[in-house]
Amino acid sequence: MKSGDATTIEVQETSAASKGKAPLIPAPLPPPRPEGWRKGIAIFDFVLRICAIVAALAATAAMGTSDETLPFFTQFFQFQASYDDLPTFQFFVIAMAIVGGYLVLSLPFSIVTIVRPRAVGPRFLLLILDTVALTLATSAGAAAAAIDYLAHNGNPNTNWLAICQQFGDFCQKVSGAVVGSFIVVVLLVVLVVLSSMALRRI
Amino acid sequence: MKSGDATTIEVQETSAASKGKAPLIPAPLPPPRPEGWRKGIAIFDFVLRICAIVAALAATAAMGTSDETLPFFTQFFQFQASYDDLPTFQFFVIAMAIVGGYLVLSLPFSIVTIVRPRAVGPRFLLLILDTVALTLATSAGAAAAAIDYLAHNGNPNTNWLAICQQFGDFCQKVSGAVVGSFIVVVLLVVLVVLSSMALRRI
Repeated sequence: MKSGDATTIEVQETSAASKGKAPLIPAPLPPPRPEGWRKGIAIFDFVLRICAIVAALAATAAMGTSDETLPFFTQFFQFQASYDDLPTFQFFVIAMAIVGGYLVLSLPFSIVTIVRPRAVGPRFLLLILDTVALTLATSAGAAAAAIDYLAHNGNPNTNWLAICQQFGDFCQKVSGAVVGSFIVVVLLVVLVVLSSMALRRI
Repeated sequence: MKSGDATTIEVQETSAASKGKAPLIPAPLPPPRPEGWRKGIAIFDFVLRICAIVAALAATAAMGTSDETLPFFTQFFQFQASYDDLPTFQFFVIAMAIVGGYLVLSLPFSIVTIVRPRAVGPRFLLLILDTVALTLATSAGAAAAAIDYLAHNGNPNTNWLAICQQFGDFCQKVSGAVVGSFIVVVLLVVLVVLSSMALRRI
């Protein structure tokens, strides 16, 4: 029996069914998408989050413990400076504590994206909340930086005198806290960009 | 000739090729993805960008023209307040002008995403630059707000006196500019979230 006969029979047999439209060679399946880079991004995300937590807590602690009492006092009052004296610094402590707490709570979601690199929901949630946390951290850092600048340099136009000549240690701690908050801001920007890269369609 | 013979011959003929693995019914094609919502997001993005441009330019103009001269003066100097007197307000004007300029330049990219809703590159670029612009606008707004609060209320602990009793119009304009910058911040947060939604795989 020749192969030509077999082909003819085959066509007769399957012309009614839809099998005749199937290509002889199966259509090439889409190549398995590489998931390694997505997992790598998720792990990098986790590490950056831990760095941001450390920076946020350090900034909060530095600002919260900034307190200086000068070693001399008059009959009427003692010279003391604390973050409580300036509402902006109070806002800084509260906002950075919120950002630090959020970052700790976001760690489980980051772990979920490591385990399931293709999960869209957790990444999308993290991106939105990271953006909000970024706004909060930036506003706290910028406001504290503005007041810190004023404390260092004063402003002759408005007769606001620099207080850092007297309260040097206080100003140092405040500046350190501001630097910490800026590190948090940079890390959060990187986190937002990483999340959006991972969300991208390949 | 029976069908059973034909089947046997067919198996003999194609066992070497990979045809044997092809399904009888062709694999269902993925349904055509709806692109309408992506285009809708792109149009909404464009409208929000125009609103943000208006708010940014209004904030810049309000701060840049804040200038008040009191109607009395002493022998030595005239009482005058301008945004130039405070470095934070100068930073505000520069930063908001940059944000406004960036938003104008981003309009063509936004139009590209309207015309080609599935284009990933322009959206990704916009998302990264929007995040940076968000950080800039937030820092300018928060720093100006901190100084504005100080101008309104003063701070007895540091002997910084409120200047808004004297310079009421100046403070009003500054407060208006701060409100404008906060509107820009909110719009930019929405833009970042929209871009990430559009980047999401369906």
